[in-house]
Amino acid sequence: MYRLHSFCQSGNCHKVALTLQLLRQPWEPVFVDFMNGATRSSAWRDEFNEMGEAPVLEFIELGEETRLTQSGLIMTVLAERHADFMPALAGRNTRERREVLRWLLFDNHKFTSYLATYRFMKSFGASAPDPAVLAFLKTRMDAAFAIVESHLRTRPFLVGDHLSLADLSLSAYLFYPDEEFGGDVLAGYPYLRAWVIRLMAIPGLKGPYELLPGERIAPRW
Amino acid sequence: MYRLHSFCQSGNCHKVALTLQLLRQPWEPVFVDFMNGATRSSAWRDEFNEMGEAPVLEFIELGEETRLTQSGLIMTVLAERHADFMPALAGRNTRERREVLRWLLFDNHKFTSYLATYRFMKSFGASAPDPAVLAFLKTRMDAAFAIVESHLRTRPFLVGDHLSLADLSLSAYLFYPDEEFGGDVLAGYPYLRAWVIRLMAIPGLKGPYELLPGERIAPRW
Repeated sequence: MYRLHSFCQSGNCHKVALTLQLLRQPWEPVFVDFMNGATRSSAWRDEFNEMGEAPVLEFIELGEETRLTQSGLIMTVLAERHADFMPALAGRNTRERREVLRWLLFDNHKFTSYLATYRFMKSFGASAPDPAVLAFLKTRMDAAFAIVESHLRTRPFLVGDHLSLADLSLSAYLFYPDEEFGGDVLAGYPYLRAWVIRLMAIPGLKGPYELLPGERIAPRW
Repeated sequence: MYRLHSFCQSGNCHKVALTLQLLRQPWEPVFVDFMNGATRSSAWRDEFNEMGEAPVLEFIELGEETRLTQSGLIMTVLAERHADFMPALAGRNTRERREVLRWLLFDNHKFTSYLATYRFMKSFGASAPDPAVLAFLKTRMDAAFAIVESHLRTRPFLVGDHLSLADLSLSAYLFYPDEEFGGDVLAGYPYLRAWVIRLMAIPGLKGPYELLPGERIAPRW
């Protein structure tokens, strides 16, 4: 049994939830009150994650209580632990496993980083965002979108013509409704949109508000 | 022989150069004219990296020409290929290897991402940066610095009491001179500063302007 410390506004938590769902693993969510500062307290940092973030995954491994943080690492460990059930998820061979890690790094550096920050500041920040900062994030987000759009023009999934962790990592934030991005965030990206719809149709890959704990919050604007 | 497509203003290229140096591998730099847009051309994207970035590492593997991109992936592959020479670099066991990947992901998501963008906009961007955007990046950068500072308070290196890829990845941009950050970027972070000085003293770990090709450029301000 996996325990996922998480909250429904976090696409990074959703990445792990999607992975657990796909691997058909029993798991239970544990609510983290991120929106009220829980992950930034010293108690949380000392006990769960010095980086002050969710998700945190807990499970028993070789008889020991294990805690992992960073969605990209958690997903990789899960795919390796359950490779017998779904061997292709982490990549079918060395070349594909490298490609998966490459996209996970790109996601953290250029894709989720801007997309998630843009959505959070636009809809859930404590105060109204600076327009220049929002415009900066939007430009960076669109540059990352254009790269993935071009990649998906000639293939159904990011790596190796099959579903992999790369798809789950980059798509998780795109499961959120348009209104949280202030509008149709995928306008002008038909291949990205078709890919997200393809992923949403896979059994078990539900949205964050169905899978993760916490109150849904209306966007501020 | 490794060929590293790179340029001296890129700390991401420097991460790979530091790894090659530490592993005592023969390598040659190939200049990429990033500052004049080379990596954003379709020719570069088609031939070298659809993500429009350097570094790119080329080498022969199992008789085949291989190209890798994303510094975190390149470093991981190099450490694994040359684990006989320096087995601890990628982590000495499963727990450490997970820790290394965790810090590489944190670096891409929260540390290099803000630090590198701040430095670039401050000193090398085509036009003067928006003050609100700079302030946003600085706040995020300081939050990431505080996490690493706290971690280094009780240990000399990020993972397992020995040098690892995590140290090379997070420190690479901190090899650049203060003036490129607009001042003493490590003021207030004594443990971070001591750690960078410790790394700079390791034989072979030279600065980017000694290791990488291209003209040095004076900061605009």
